[in-house]
Amino acid sequence: MRAPIALRVNPDVDPHTHQYISTGSQENKFGIALDQVRAVYERAATMSNIEIVGVQMHIGSQITEAKPFASAIEKVAPLVRELKSKYAIQFFSIGGGMGIIYRRALESGAGKWWRDHGPACAGSAFSVRNYAEAIVPPLRDLAIRTLVEPGRFLIGNAGVLLTRVRYIKQTGSKKFAIVDAGMNDLIRPALYQSYHEIVPVKQPKTERERKISKIDIVGPVCESGDFFALDRDMPEMREGDLLAIMSAGAYGFVMASNYNSRPLPAEALVRGDKFALIRKRQTWEDLVREEVEGDC
Amino acid sequence: MRAPIALRVNPDVDPHTHQYISTGSQENKFGIALDQVRAVYERAATMSNIEIVGVQMHIGSQITEAKPFASAIEKVAPLVRELKSKYAIQFFSIGGGMGIIYRRALESGAGKWWRDHGPACAGSAFSVRNYAEAIVPPLRDLAIRTLVEPGRFLIGNAGVLLTRVRYIKQTGSKKFAIVDAGMNDLIRPALYQSYHEIVPVKQPKTERERKISKIDIVGPVCESGDFFALDRDMPEMREGDLLAIMSAGAYGFVMASNYNSRPLPAEALVRGDKFALIRKRQTWEDLVREEVEGDC
Repeated sequence: MRAPIALRVNPDVDPHTHQYISTGSQENKFGIALDQVRAVYERAATMSNIEIVGVQMHIGSQITEAKPFASAIEKVAPLVRELKSKYAIQFFSIGGGMGIIYRRALESGAGKWWRDHGPACAGSAFSVRNYAEAIVPPLRDLAIRTLVEPGRFLIGNAGVLLTRVRYIKQTGSKKFAIVDAGMNDLIRPALYQSYHEIVPVKQPKTERERKISKIDIVGPVCESGDFFALDRDMPEMREGDLLAIMSAGAYGFVMASNYNSRPLPAEALVRGDKFALIRKRQTWEDLVREEVEGDC
Repeated sequence: MRAPIALRVNPDVDPHTHQYISTGSQENKFGIALDQVRAVYERAATMSNIEIVGVQMHIGSQITEAKPFASAIEKVAPLVRELKSKYAIQFFSIGGGMGIIYRRALESGAGKWWRDHGPACAGSAFSVRNYAEAIVPPLRDLAIRTLVEPGRFLIGNAGVLLTRVRYIKQTGSKKFAIVDAGMNDLIRPALYQSYHEIVPVKQPKTERERKISKIDIVGPVCESGDFFALDRDMPEMREGDLLAIMSAGAYGFVMASNYNSRPLPAEALVRGDKFALIRKRQTWEDLVREEVEGDC
């Protein structure tokens, strides 16, 4: 049996993204440097258990402009052409990294009022059209089956982390909303300093409720890194209110932990006004299931 | 039934630690500002279901000098004295935060060779004696039962994350050791830019094996934040070598996640040359146990 492989080429292109999710430079652990790729394919071709089937590259994650993708393809295209002439290359995967618009995930439901009435937010110019217009020209001449890996782009904005305000706290000049979700449920703000829109599920109605003021939205975990938003402009909030932390569909639950002995939340699938439980809330018992009595 | 409570006072002292684990300033979500504490105790005393039993404070975590603890106690002591005269205060918890010496956890076993032969490392001047000498004088006059919360101090250096080198990779000017543990197992380097000593379990013997060179020690997870050490001076490493990532006993396993669909590692208790399994390695089945079929 031969294992089909696609080697990962490192195009050494700066994707202008957070250093933790930039993957295609010489400083990263990923991929094979462009000038070494030929030699590695040559060596792989001599191996009886290896079947060369493709070429892959990946320049990073959450990239919010189309140009770096095009630059990387242009840089790697001559190599792909050459490899295609030598080996049975069936595809060229140009990787993932299509960024989503974390600051505008407000087009429906809880976010609609916010889009119309909330503070202006920066957004991003990235769209599927931008992406296609950038990548198709350098790919056309290659005439090769092309794969993309748009995971976050497909599901990032489809997921919301629902949380309830436990306390409103004023200390000196600062105001805090302490909610029942924590950094263990969504670590992106702490780990990548990521921005997530946060909107009240019940739309504010009165003039007073709509009054905007700055607040830190934080979890109950025992460290100051446990935050979802710092100095965020928000309408009036009260204990018991439900908040939707938007764009939590990617790198949300999959990075969740049991830190502070917090069972993982439930997951529900929602379609219109129907929903179905698709993952049960963890229990205390789940946290210690793997523990066994041992002594030495 | 009355619930016993100890209110948490915020001494507003800078602990000189990472911003994510500094907890005692007005900018943090924790505690009650000093000038508001009297009013809150007064109000709590009127509540029939609340029994005031203590005073608590906490200035942060991983504090590597004794002085901030003493400063905080001095600042809060007059208040504790006053509260003691009014309420049935049974204890004063001065919180946790005793830092451990991440750069010198090398006194025995795998670390011994490294201490003697490895590069010099900065270390920290913190010790139990320093701590006691700093905190006892301001506490003595209070004459109150004092609690400390030295979790990390007790277990931080008692734990090691054992990992195996999967590949050694050279790209351009950089060298990488890709190991089988990842940021999902120990997120401290990515989250807090924390330093952990990393030592080869088998002590290098020959002159060649002892040769020190710079290397990134990284995991197999799909992002560049998945690292344990960057540009670290290490002796010669080979694929298959076991490494001990030191000081992983606190904020290690408890913050671990299943990111990249990676089952949690096993935990073993070690005494001398004996060991016992105390937590079973997770399986693929464990990752999806809570999932249920749902449609809507």
